[in-house]
Amino acid sequence: MALIVQKYGGTSVANLERFRDVAERVIKTKEQGNDVVVVVSAMAGETDRLLLLAHEATLVPDERELDVLLATGEQASSAMFSIILQSMGTAVKSFLGHQIKIGTDSAYGKARITSVDADKILSELREGRVVVVAGFQGEDEAGNITTLGRGGSDISAVAIAAALKADLCEIYTDVDGVFTTNPAICEHARKIDRISYDEMLEMASLGAKVLQTRSVEFAKKFGVPIHVRSSFHAGEGTIVCEEEVDMEQVAVSGVTYDVNQARIEIARVPDRPGIAAQFFDAISKANILVDMIIQTTSLEEGVANMAFTISQADFPKALTVARSLAKELGAKEVIAEDEVAKVSMVGVGMRSHSGVASKMFGVLAKEGINIMMISTSEIKISCIIDAKYTELAVRSLHDAFELDKRNT
Amino acid sequence: MALIVQKYGGTSVANLERFRDVAERVIKTKEQGNDVVVVVSAMAGETDRLLLLAHEATLVPDERELDVLLATGEQASSAMFSIILQSMGTAVKSFLGHQIKIGTDSAYGKARITSVDADKILSELREGRVVVVAGFQGEDEAGNITTLGRGGSDISAVAIAAALKADLCEIYTDVDGVFTTNPAICEHARKIDRISYDEMLEMASLGAKVLQTRSVEFAKKFGVPIHVRSSFHAGEGTIVCEEEVDMEQVAVSGVTYDVNQARIEIARVPDRPGIAAQFFDAISKANILVDMIIQTTSLEEGVANMAFTISQADFPKALTVARSLAKELGAKEVIAEDEVAKVSMVGVGMRSHSGVASKMFGVLAKEGINIMMISTSEIKISCIIDAKYTELAVRSLHDAFELDKRNT
Repeated sequence: MALIVQKYGGTSVANLERFRDVAERVIKTKEQGNDVVVVVSAMAGETDRLLLLAHEATLVPDERELDVLLATGEQASSAMFSIILQSMGTAVKSFLGHQIKIGTDSAYGKARITSVDADKILSELREGRVVVVAGFQGEDEAGNITTLGRGGSDISAVAIAAALKADLCEIYTDVDGVFTTNPAICEHARKIDRISYDEMLEMASLGAKVLQTRSVEFAKKFGVPIHVRSSFHAGEGTIVCEEEVDMEQVAVSGVTYDVNQARIEIARVPDRPGIAAQFFDAISKANILVDMIIQTTSLEEGVANMAFTISQADFPKALTVARSLAKELGAKEVIAEDEVAKVSMVGVGMRSHSGVASKMFGVLAKEGINIMMISTSEIKISCIIDAKYTELAVRSLHDAFELDKRNT
Repeated sequence: MALIVQKYGGTSVANLERFRDVAERVIKTKEQGNDVVVVVSAMAGETDRLLLLAHEATLVPDERELDVLLATGEQASSAMFSIILQSMGTAVKSFLGHQIKIGTDSAYGKARITSVDADKILSELREGRVVVVAGFQGEDEAGNITTLGRGGSDISAVAIAAALKADLCEIYTDVDGVFTTNPAICEHARKIDRISYDEMLEMASLGAKVLQTRSVEFAKKFGVPIHVRSSFHAGEGTIVCEEEVDMEQVAVSGVTYDVNQARIEIARVPDRPGIAAQFFDAISKANILVDMIIQTTSLEEGVANMAFTISQADFPKALTVARSLAKELGAKEVIAEDEVAKVSMVGVGMRSHSGVASKMFGVLAKEGINIMMISTSEIKISCIIDAKYTELAVRSLHDAFELDKRNT
């Protein structure tokens, strides 16, 4: 007998039929002798409907009140799910964020969970009930309703699992699990059976959209194993857990990509101490999140080049800052490219396997793909390339590293 | 400067345009130097939509969870209203039932308010904000969400006005106020300027649908003056307040009717002590609410007739009980009529004016309308008549008592 937290996303509770499918899964898990806590998202499309309603009213809705509005989506789906479970003969109670004290800070729309009161849930479980919790929402210290941002229900589920010291947190979604790369662009993509928190974090932040970075961080911090799986069939998905010895046998776990990138280069800046600081100062004042930065000395003596990447959303703003900075620094040129992509290889095995980087560069070179920038971490290598080569790069790397084969 | 509670019903917040109209009214009230608390219902149609959703899932939805579901309607409209007020430059905060401790008992779907914490609202008002409260909802002692039943937002508004010791509770609706009778069937119907709580209670319980009986009881208990008025224009409506001296000058304030009535007569019962008790016992065990009861001795010696009225919803159940009781008591006959109506005259002036009853009976007699049953209270006379004469009876009485003229 285990304590299992199951989280169902919007497509898993899109309509009555789906609600009933999912309810049967909950009942089956309970009948196998487990305690079950269910965390639900809003019914598919509901959050978008509410956002549209608010934005039809005004361009910038009040943040506090928008959270009150959005929180109704998960409230309705947790009530509906409980009504359906009850009608199928299962004892159940639903709880909203404030009712089980999902404490958060006061950052409306992107609040962070600071505490969860496990006692109320545990006492309901002891009485043999299934507990259904509205995801995505919490309450700040002053008693205001807060929401956790898109994908927030995943974080709710992991935080509740952590507070309850649950044996497993199952995240039900409409995909089969975490893949070696996006199956939509690479037909050889393979579902990964087990992946470490660190690899999942890199994959998530690099563009794999199955799990939100914050929920993986939370799971890692509290050692909650996550099982990402589909609610549309019974097959196993991907377990995200502590690093295991045999994971290190595999050099590379996956290839990710992000086409939502742009690159700006301030070229031929007179090289003197302090220009990097001046650059950072200007860019952070403009509230722009810079990903990679590379400063190089040019062939031309006494001049440097400074290149950086940002998300495409920040591109116009960053370009304005770069141009004004270029003038100030006496730079000769600003080169802006908004059609670049970041292709990355991730794997804890890189720590023990050398040669991944050189092999990666070799594969890209063989395909005639120019690498504009490179950045690395202990378990990741990322290259900025021309966006039009994205699919080609991903497929070539996937094949070259034989990710379609289960290497463990 | 006054403290005013304004309640807006579903048709007053049916869409963005209506929301903005109503927001302008709130802003105007505030600009006149008043403190304003707004209580909102769910947007028109929303409660029905949610009820349908729950009943599509199962015939008898769990009561606790149904309240969680229904409460989202008022939560969404209070958030939307606050978003719109904020966008129009007004400082505002919304509160749900649990956030301002609208304490209720645990009767899901028809909970009664037991307490309201005024402090939080008063402190927001002191900071110059408009306070928007989600109507219709509260929280029981265990922290469960409860709802107050249809029309519950009126009760929310009156209870909040009572707790705040507000100067006035304005109930905005889609009619102009309380009328001497239903304008739909009597073109001479006139809007009443002022009416006492007791008269309004009789009018409400006798079928006038503008205000719920429970909210008038609440207002009477705490001495909260209510202004029932339209949110569609600026005209004054009807003030419901303590009885005033000049109200007694008017014998009759209004004519009401209720066609949702049925009558059952158990005829020619052998007359012996205890048959009335036996009757009450059987009928109350069947959970049937009896309105009028009349026991008469028949011309035939040693036999009695027992007649009672019930709502049409209870008619089939009551008929079954009556038939089995008739057999038990040895009654000769059961006469059942489900096409009867109750026509009533209401007025605090009846206390000091005699002759209202005889005039009423005379008017009906002149129109050839047979009176089946009569019941009276200090400020009301009701007659049961054949339902097909309802409109004729109402118009004749309205004319005969000259209710179209402002008699004060």
